Amino acid sequence: MKELDRLRDALRAFAAARDWERFHAPKNLAMALSVEAAELLEVFQWMTEADSRNLEPAAKTAASEEIADVLLYLIVLSDALDIDPVAAAERKMVANAQKYPVEKARGTHKKYTQL
Amino acid sequence: MKELDRLRDALRAFAAARDWERFHAPKNLAMALSVEAAELLEVFQWMTEADSRNLEPAAKTAASEEIADVLLYLIVLSDALDIDPVAAAERKMVANAQKYPVEKARGTHKKYTQL
Amino acid sequence: MKELDRLRDALRAFAAARDWERFHAPKNLAMALSVEAAELLEVFQWMTEADSRNLEPAAKTAASEEIADVLLYLIVLSDALDIDPVAAAERKMVANAQKYPVEKARGTHKKYTQL
Amino acid sequence: MKELDRLRDALRAFAAARDWERFHAPKNLAMALSVEAAELLEVFQWMTEADSRNLEPAAKTAASEEIADVLLYLIVLSDALDIDPVAAAERKMVANAQKYPVEKARGTHKKYTQL
Repeated sequence: MKELDRLRDALRAFAAARDWERFHAPKNLAMALSVEAAELLEVFQWMTEADSRNLEPAAKTAASEEIADVLLYLIVLSDALDIDPVAAAERKMVANAQKYPVEKARGTHKKYTQL
Repeated sequence: MKELDRLRDALRAFAAARDWERFHAPKNLAMALSVEAAELLEVFQWMTEADSRNLEPAAKTAASEEIADVLLYLIVLSDALDIDPVAAAERKMVANAQKYPVEKARGTHKKYTQL
Repeated sequence: MKELDRLRDALRAFAAARDWERFHAPKNLAMALSVEAAELLEVFQWMTEADSRNLEPAAKTAASEEIADVLLYLIVLSDALDIDPVAAAERKMVANAQKYPVEKARGTHKKYTQL
Repeated sequence: MKELDRLRDALRAFAAARDWERFHAPKNLAMALSVEAAELLEVFQWMTEADSRNLEPAAKTAASEEIADVLLYLIVLSDALDIDPVAAAERKMVANAQKYPVEKARGTHKKYTQL
């Protein structure tokens, strides 16, 4: 069984046991995901870029917990919408390869339409 | 090979070919992740909760693309921090089971400390 | 003196007394603003729309504090960029009136280009 | 008349003319505010801190438009909740002065509880 499917099944059981499906409208889950993404952002907000590449242990632990929360809500939301996140990511990788061809995108992070 | 590891390797090759590692400080990647989470949020912002449970095809496609972007940046950020997102999520599931015991959390989405 | 200018001056003095200007790169301030906006979002995340129109006192207090934080960071960021936020908002009101003409926008929140 | 009250009245008339009050549940407005804060964040996401202190004209214009959007939604949301954002900000300034005393906060952006 794939690893995200295993997490999805565990999350379904977790929500069912607590009668939480009623709260899990995709609108609410997208809000929760944004909130967790911001908690992850908060870890880095006053740090230099260089420091963010060499996290102190406490910051790394905090980042790890917020990454977990983002992934968990992403799985619950995808499940509620009947979307396979890995398949969607694989399709996006193909699209990105066309959108940002190597010869035009090398060393610049401008959007392709701006090149 | 696990599915997120496969995506991680593809993303490493994608960034290396474009010389984009220089932009990929965790601080910047956490910003990009938050921006994508907000683009996902935008899909639902004027929708009722009920409508968000029954997306029209165009909205479902849009949600799918933003879910892909969130997952891709989550993988790149985790890789930059040397964090395994699935292992972190599994640890968080264990912690959440203790934080939200079934008998206290049933049917309420208040935080346990508020119960 | 205008009310936002008064807050701006107080915020300048506050940061100077604490030697915080060094942290106040616009990039960092935009991150802090996003984090505060997410904390405001968190107040509403499991609420129905109807409940959000009739907040309990504790939620209203929480919303008020987060609104304050968003406004304060918006002022600090605008000051760092030498942008007048009220003048920018007035220009945007003019642009929005052209973008969303009454006869086309009435009762729909789709973007004008989608109408 | 105060400047934010003037904007608030203009925004009320704008929404009423378009029959948009029905969309303006505080829950939805908090989502819109978060989305705009993320669009502001996006302006800075691949920039160095140093570059963010010296914006090119196109980036400054983009930042100015997003600052306007954040302020406008903050006013609409505050109005929907019957909260005076300037009074809330003034109260927060008093609380922050107690939370971050000069002698402890000088030169560090750690939260006071961490000092």
